Amino acid sequence: MGGKPVATRLYLPQSLGDGGTLGLDHQRAHYLRAVLRLKRGDHVAVFNAEDGEWDAEIEGLGKGWASLALTERRRPPAPEPDVQLVFAPIKRARLDFLVEKATELGAAKLQPVYTQHTDVSRVNTERLAANAREAAEQCERLSVPDVAEPVDFRALLATWPTERRILLCAESGSAPPIAEVLARHAAQPAASAVTAPWAIMTGPEGGFHGSELDALRKLPFVAPVGLGPRVLRADTAALAALACWQAWLGDGRDDPPFRRS
Amino acid sequence: MGGKPVATRLYLPQSLGDGGTLGLDHQRAHYLRAVLRLKRGDHVAVFNAEDGEWDAEIEGLGKGWASLALTERRRPPAPEPDVQLVFAPIKRARLDFLVEKATELGAAKLQPVYTQHTDVSRVNTERLAANAREAAEQCERLSVPDVAEPVDFRALLATWPTERRILLCAESGSAPPIAEVLARHAAQPAASAVTAPWAIMTGPEGGFHGSELDALRKLPFVAPVGLGPRVLRADTAALAALACWQAWLGDGRDDPPFRRS
Repeated sequence: MGGKPVATRLYLPQSLGDGGTLGLDHQRAHYLRAVLRLKRGDHVAVFNAEDGEWDAEIEGLGKGWASLALTERRRPPAPEPDVQLVFAPIKRARLDFLVEKATELGAAKLQPVYTQHTDVSRVNTERLAANAREAAEQCERLSVPDVAEPVDFRALLATWPTERRILLCAESGSAPPIAEVLARHAAQPAASAVTAPWAIMTGPEGGFHGSELDALRKLPFVAPVGLGPRVLRADTAALAALACWQAWLGDGRDDPPFRRS
Repeated sequence: MGGKPVATRLYLPQSLGDGGTLGLDHQRAHYLRAVLRLKRGDHVAVFNAEDGEWDAEIEGLGKGWASLALTERRRPPAPEPDVQLVFAPIKRARLDFLVEKATELGAAKLQPVYTQHTDVSRVNTERLAANAREAAEQCERLSVPDVAEPVDFRALLATWPTERRILLCAESGSAPPIAEVLARHAAQPAASAVTAPWAIMTGPEGGFHGSELDALRKLPFVAPVGLGPRVLRADTAALAALACWQAWLGDGRDDPPFRRS
């Protein structure tokens, strides 16, 4: 585990290990050479959730190719909170922002869901995955959130694993305050985030349909929460709930790597 | 206090009262007529922090002018949490987003501050104020955050009122987790948000200078907090801290107006 963070972190899905050599794809090689202007002998960090983060020296770098030699492991793999974000897709600029922020706030999976009032009929999951990867590289995560293909609301509920609790951002009807719900779960010894799977669910800008909310409220694993007196946009609600969840049930008590002064 | 929320809410700084008639400026009149296509006899809601929210009927509407008749008060004025956001200015798209979200999350004042590592040298406070007003209109707030002119970090600290606590998003060095700090303050009976003034402070993308952090950490009213193991962007940190603050010390236990089903 080397000392300070290096400026450039690259997520690489391939297996990372001692003494290994890795080739980069055209796009990443171009990024190192033409955008960052790195040279042979410079170092970057490469990471993934399975193998942790490794220091890598640029062995060779040309137009559209690069090879890296792994030198030492900077961070071992470590468990991360299992919290998903289930959200009705919103307009593109807001969606880009939501993906970036949800990645920084530690969402393990981003699951778009089509509800009755959802206005957006197509989601570019490749674009979202690229945004998620970039945000993960920036924020010193070891994992990149899994961006799932959109599913229909009814199908999602029909196949939902009952052990995964849902924190429902309920934009209408009465719901206990989020602080109360999270404090109640935080007081349970088995509620440790690394073991207990959760999801945070938000509706579209127009809100859930009444019948959708009714269906959700009947499920024993759904905890509706209120987020205060201001009516939050869908993206704001998602980020506020995720931030509170991490602070109380997630890894909000941990320090960033390499930042213990 | 009328029943349901109406679609259009306008913030008007002038005094609102029973039986009053109000003229709108060119821009708002154009918005009602050409954008929303409202007509004489249609209703909107108008509000400000001093007089609450009023139902208003459009009495007359022409090219560049409109007059409204106030009919009944929908909501009385009500105290709001006194939490400011003190932030180093960031790039424009991110700043627009930060202002919108901070308004939804109930910041009473937005105070840009120039720190040593701040990259942005000019802040368009008029633009930010317009964004804040629009977000306040959308989220059913009664107040619009006060957007202050930027100040220098040292000047800000030199004139800081010591009774206003600062929740410092500390991006380096050790700091207790935000959940711990907020829970400690929430346990104090006098810590009710409506009475206790707070500010949330975030640095620029490059972080605070070491000497700035040292100066902050020495002040008795500054509470540094950690936001978990991921390194958050400045705007994400501000929103996460504000969301947690509202949930635990602010008005996160209140319901939205008109939404008690």
